[in-house]
Amino acid sequence: MIIVVKAGATAEEIAQIEERIASYGLAAHVSRGVERTVIGAIGDERKMQAEAFEGMACVEKVLRILKPYKIVSRDFQNEDTVISVRGQQIGGGTVALFAGPCSVEGRAMMIDIGKQVASCGASFLRGGAFKPRTSPYAFQGLGEEGLRILAEAREATGLPVATELMDPRDIDLVVRYADVIQIGARNMQNFRLLTEVGRLDTPVILKRGMSATIMEWLMSAEYIASEGNRRIILCERGVRTFESATRNTFDVSAIPVVKGLSHLPVIADPSHATGQMGLVEPLAAAAVAAGADGVMVEVHHQPETALSDGPQSLRPEVFREMTARLKSIAAAVGKRLGNA
Amino acid sequence: MIIVVKAGATAEEIAQIEERIASYGLAAHVSRGVERTVIGAIGDERKMQAEAFEGMACVEKVLRILKPYKIVSRDFQNEDTVISVRGQQIGGGTVALFAGPCSVEGRAMMIDIGKQVASCGASFLRGGAFKPRTSPYAFQGLGEEGLRILAEAREATGLPVATELMDPRDIDLVVRYADVIQIGARNMQNFRLLTEVGRLDTPVILKRGMSATIMEWLMSAEYIASEGNRRIILCERGVRTFESATRNTFDVSAIPVVKGLSHLPVIADPSHATGQMGLVEPLAAAAVAAGADGVMVEVHHQPETALSDGPQSLRPEVFREMTARLKSIAAAVGKRLGNA
Amino acid sequence: MIIVVKAGATAEEIAQIEERIASYGLAAHVSRGVERTVIGAIGDERKMQAEAFEGMACVEKVLRILKPYKIVSRDFQNEDTVISVRGQQIGGGTVALFAGPCSVEGRAMMIDIGKQVASCGASFLRGGAFKPRTSPYAFQGLGEEGLRILAEAREATGLPVATELMDPRDIDLVVRYADVIQIGARNMQNFRLLTEVGRLDTPVILKRGMSATIMEWLMSAEYIASEGNRRIILCERGVRTFESATRNTFDVSAIPVVKGLSHLPVIADPSHATGQMGLVEPLAAAAVAAGADGVMVEVHHQPETALSDGPQSLRPEVFREMTARLKSIAAAVGKRLGNA
Amino acid sequence: MIIVVKAGATAEEIAQIEERIASYGLAAHVSRGVERTVIGAIGDERKMQAEAFEGMACVEKVLRILKPYKIVSRDFQNEDTVISVRGQQIGGGTVALFAGPCSVEGRAMMIDIGKQVASCGASFLRGGAFKPRTSPYAFQGLGEEGLRILAEAREATGLPVATELMDPRDIDLVVRYADVIQIGARNMQNFRLLTEVGRLDTPVILKRGMSATIMEWLMSAEYIASEGNRRIILCERGVRTFESATRNTFDVSAIPVVKGLSHLPVIADPSHATGQMGLVEPLAAAAVAAGADGVMVEVHHQPETALSDGPQSLRPEVFREMTARLKSIAAAVGKRLGNA
Repeated sequence: MIIVVKAGATAEEIAQIEERIASYGLAAHVSRGVERTVIGAIGDERKMQAEAFEGMACVEKVLRILKPYKIVSRDFQNEDTVISVRGQQIGGGTVALFAGPCSVEGRAMMIDIGKQVASCGASFLRGGAFKPRTSPYAFQGLGEEGLRILAEAREATGLPVATELMDPRDIDLVVRYADVIQIGARNMQNFRLLTEVGRLDTPVILKRGMSATIMEWLMSAEYIASEGNRRIILCERGVRTFESATRNTFDVSAIPVVKGLSHLPVIADPSHATGQMGLVEPLAAAAVAAGADGVMVEVHHQPETALSDGPQSLRPEVFREMTARLKSIAAAVGKRLGNA
Repeated sequence: MIIVVKAGATAEEIAQIEERIASYGLAAHVSRGVERTVIGAIGDERKMQAEAFEGMACVEKVLRILKPYKIVSRDFQNEDTVISVRGQQIGGGTVALFAGPCSVEGRAMMIDIGKQVASCGASFLRGGAFKPRTSPYAFQGLGEEGLRILAEAREATGLPVATELMDPRDIDLVVRYADVIQIGARNMQNFRLLTEVGRLDTPVILKRGMSATIMEWLMSAEYIASEGNRRIILCERGVRTFESATRNTFDVSAIPVVKGLSHLPVIADPSHATGQMGLVEPLAAAAVAAGADGVMVEVHHQPETALSDGPQSLRPEVFREMTARLKSIAAAVGKRLGNA
Repeated sequence: MIIVVKAGATAEEIAQIEERIASYGLAAHVSRGVERTVIGAIGDERKMQAEAFEGMACVEKVLRILKPYKIVSRDFQNEDTVISVRGQQIGGGTVALFAGPCSVEGRAMMIDIGKQVASCGASFLRGGAFKPRTSPYAFQGLGEEGLRILAEAREATGLPVATELMDPRDIDLVVRYADVIQIGARNMQNFRLLTEVGRLDTPVILKRGMSATIMEWLMSAEYIASEGNRRIILCERGVRTFESATRNTFDVSAIPVVKGLSHLPVIADPSHATGQMGLVEPLAAAAVAAGADGVMVEVHHQPETALSDGPQSLRPEVFREMTARLKSIAAAVGKRLGNA
Repeated sequence: MIIVVKAGATAEEIAQIEERIASYGLAAHVSRGVERTVIGAIGDERKMQAEAFEGMACVEKVLRILKPYKIVSRDFQNEDTVISVRGQQIGGGTVALFAGPCSVEGRAMMIDIGKQVASCGASFLRGGAFKPRTSPYAFQGLGEEGLRILAEAREATGLPVATELMDPRDIDLVVRYADVIQIGARNMQNFRLLTEVGRLDTPVILKRGMSATIMEWLMSAEYIASEGNRRIILCERGVRTFESATRNTFDVSAIPVVKGLSHLPVIADPSHATGQMGLVEPLAAAAVAAGADGVMVEVHHQPETALSDGPQSLRPEVFREMTARLKSIAAAVGKRLGNA
């Protein structure tokens, strides 16, 4: 940690900073420049609070040298984490394909869509039983019934299922049915929920918060990892910006950036990133070209009657074409696509 | 709701839109312009899903006429909501002053700070027992012990206490001690938590999410109100932007905008908005000048040793000066300041 | 244009709106709903100022039906614009490759880099003679000398050259040397400059402003087109967001969105979007996968001594590898890459 | 400057960094920590390019210690700059009031509005002769005729006039008429224009760019100051964010932040920040409460027929009420308001 002292700080003030650094068990290293005095704290800066110095009147700014996350960083583990679930793989040269309706709306539709996406090469079925909705008056999901239907769809297709968990009180229930648990963008900093899924064995998809920096996203992954669960899949789904032509701005750069900083696999959700079916395919292609380990898309047999997210859902036949395109892109970057 | 149809849509497609509008019980009103056909849906558009139309291939865009929230809007209730708690008032010409440490760190400090802020004119004591922290390795709050200390501080000062609730599993516990429950920015769209506090009588401070639009913020208030609890206090605490000179960008315009759209009181939290003690006073002054019904500030007797948020905490003597300044500003806009 | 009237507006106020619509030569169409009265203006809404209605006390909001740009829209021209310059093509199935140093620093380096990128398949040489720099103390470009060197590099490589124009007073000079003129992000709304390049025949690359919406970007293109010059190439180069891990956030969605709205070709500049050489290749790949008609990258033989933009410049050998990768991606989306 | 070296960098690579630092005339100071080696460059870091190090493969990040601007900083000049123009003052305890129509639309209206705002206590008249408009089809200003009318309004009211300059080719013309030159938000990084006004004596209002950081804004001020003109007035006018309820998000914190970093006066433009007449007064009050040295507002006798910015223009009678309110707020913060 580097502490930049204001011009005109007294020797006493500087001594006070040195003492505080020593109290954390680190060594202080004072370097007097022409315009500013700079104090380096040598040792494990994670033990110190930057805030403890920022609150001092004589301090101009505090610069961190190390990253605040640890277990999820490349420094901690250099080789890529590869996650296997019921024979399906995420990371390690395989681009996983998660597909299915936004919400589980009923048994027939779920099994029907499940079979169709399975036949196109999907590796995981997705479907929401608990839905976070902006409006209290909108459809909130089928709850446990939805979970039971998902389990039936797994039987019918042979594919593992992924579904969202919103509330720590639902954990036992969701774990009973889900092969992969999804933490939605709005819950990326629901720290109590992260701690709970950190105690499970089930793989967790951690979506990036709508306005989360990459550092905060990795810190949320660290919450899960620090409790023991290291089967974490990061999912870029667009961030909020001033642009209103798309629902969110898909941050494609986040894919190579995160893969540089962390060993965890990264997938992309172009459906939520854009909110428009016509943009899903080009963005899925972009994500795979940029190095994503998977793509999650919403598929519905009748988007215009979907109980949620219709405008961004693909018809199965469009999904099939997209899969063919993604297969070529994956090959161009030296990977292979799910079961396609 | 206005549905703009793409140039070149067929008569059949237009008929399909009309049918769908009728299926929701609204009347369709087709208006053929030179370049576009526009269809208005006459009736209560809240019954219809915009998505149901956006998913149709022939639809260019869907424009809403009405606001998606209802109970919290000025259309529903024109006069200002005024909230009273143990003799303290929020709204209706009174600028409430919430003050106290970020976290409850111990009995002595809490009571000491409580007495000091009470003597300066604070109307509510604040202090966190459950702390949402970006890092799993940081101090997470004293939990129930912190709540008990808060209750003692209430006895010692006579001021009602406000504290944060993070997890639906803690509701019974928190309600036992708190006079006002705070929902933090990261939980603004934790819909299950909103539903739960909606079933209480305790007033709720709903902080604006880091990247929440004003519309989403009011929709979250609607979640609470739709369950029955209408004692809601909105709190602007800065939004996330590209500017890095301050932790967040305090959206002072949100105060008059929200007061125009809703009857609920709006307060401001300049401590979290800026993260810097030197900016708290000018922003608190700005908030009151812009029409805020209250201000919430962090006060600590020794900011440089605070377990959280030290850099943005005011020393009690600085808080005292700020209070004097706010009193004049409140007078200039025709209001009076808490107990000052 | 749709004008939503506030609840409680008088018949007189509504009549006043109708009159004003009529004064613009459009027909007013009043539709009284349960909660709001809505007035449609039938005719060419581009003749009316939305502001003229927004300024009225009885108006709640004004919704536009038509797009404010015309010549650059798909409504005006449905088939893709394809631009040819000295035998090189942009659009129409060809992915153009613009490459070269950020700044022209000298004759030898420019010709050397030019030959290297030409041998890898670049279709255009880029190099700045006039440099917009955040600091007045930084290198500002070689000016006319830089332009002369560019022209020499064109002779040496056979490739057309693209360079930035910053000031209307330099037009005659720049036109004398450049095959393609570049308008930088900071000048996207320098309307006087746009008007001037609109009067030329030279193709213009119009970079998207750092915080420009897609609509504003197209309006700036309309400025150029409305003066007569329709040889416009749009260039996505990242927008400003809260994320600080990259210099800008590359808005890959903008590529398919713009191609849906406009017939103009769209290229991508991953060098400026990220500011980091390690991210240039994955983003270039993403751009081509998403449908870009070209890619512009900075190449320097010694990035660590470059006078500007070193950290984001590729070494020629890295550029060569990138070109090979892009060739496969272009093939996967049914296109061919520049001269590669 | 602090250079953080990647884990695993070789001794040779570190020596190379030291050499490069020495080549700039600074001293290198290597500090080997447990996880990272950190190299400090002691001396005037403004002579070094951070880029020169960021481009090296072994460098993880580069942290600046000093601010990149100089003349406009408090380090360079500690006492506040106070600007006087024809007897009117900006800064130094006076809150200047700039008022007038967005565009000069004609002689009668300009003189009429001028007299009205003068009688309410305005200290400067504003009015645009050259208008930057998003659409090429919108009113672009009266040009020289507008400037002549402004000069007449100055005669009629005794107030100095401020007007926008958009193009370096118009400088001689504008200087002939204007007492204060305004550089609009879209031109904040039009570096050629900044250099030109830097060579004048006329005071310059430098509006903050729509997505400019405070640091970039001060760097643009440095462009002007470095050419000699130090009569610079900074103007906050809102930044672009995701929030769409207001045209821009008024960054009220920027006022105290800039006043801490720079000696230059700072004013606020609540009209452009919000785009809505109903928000102008609360935001003007907030700006003065937060420490602004002035306020610039658009006033029009008939906002609904204004050729530009009608929806955000105040009627003279509303301006009069606002002035009374601002007078009290100014007094509450120990200042006095313009001529009121």
